[in-house]
Amino acid sequence: MPSPLQAWHHVVQSRDTAALNALLHDDVVFHSPVVHTPQRGKAITSLYLQGAMHVLNTPAFHYLREVAGPNDAVLEFQTEIDGIQINGVDLIHWDDQGLITDFKVMLRPLKAVNLVHQKMGEMLQKLAR
Amino acid sequence: MPSPLQAWHHVVQSRDTAALNALLHDDVVFHSPVVHTPQRGKAITSLYLQGAMHVLNTPAFHYLREVAGPNDAVLEFQTEIDGIQINGVDLIHWDDQGLITDFKVMLRPLKAVNLVHQKMGEMLQKLAR
Repeated sequence: MPSPLQAWHHVVQSRDTAALNALLHDDVVFHSPVVHTPQRGKAITSLYLQGAMHVLNTPAFHYLREVAGPNDAVLEFQTEIDGIQINGVDLIHWDDQGLITDFKVMLRPLKAVNLVHQKMGEMLQKLAR
Repeated sequence: MPSPLQAWHHVVQSRDTAALNALLHDDVVFHSPVVHTPQRGKAITSLYLQGAMHVLNTPAFHYLREVAGPNDAVLEFQTEIDGIQINGVDLIHWDDQGLITDFKVMLRPLKAVNLVHQKMGEMLQKLAR
């Protein structure tokens, strides 16, 4: 497994914000499943990823499938929130220094996108306080 | 590039229904970006994939990123319909005979999921006539 991917799994398991920030490039770009416009920079990307971990990383959360290349990985996950099944992918790109430069999330089905949209809005307000 | 993936690219370029059907396992399962319930079997999966090719495969359609393992690939694509940017992934799994047994599509952003939902409904009615 490429080492940025190992580091990412450590972050998901530990929810260690310092480890997350150490893994993100200063100019990392985050692409949300809901909004077209990319979010640019480490501060906002870290906030979104922390929010997503709070919202998605319930006891039902597990990875289903992992496909990796030299600088990219796609991690498929499954979780459940309020009885709604959430299926999604993390598309992660890292540079030759092993820092994540691009992080994209997609979700299905439509019901899951709408639910995560609502839950992420509430969570980001909490985290930004 | 694994040969089922080459065959898939041929199908996308040629829109050759016979080549598509030859690539699908009889018991292939299709997972839509919109609906949770999987669609089972070659007939319905082929219909959905033909519909998706009609709807998504506009002149703006192009693949952005491809990550492949021995039996799985994730193809990220970008397209535009009615001025709306559509970003998505095909998650493809094939068996040791090179037949596709599982095909999953996810889209972003939310606006794209809603638009494709509407367009696919219209297209499937046309194709099923």
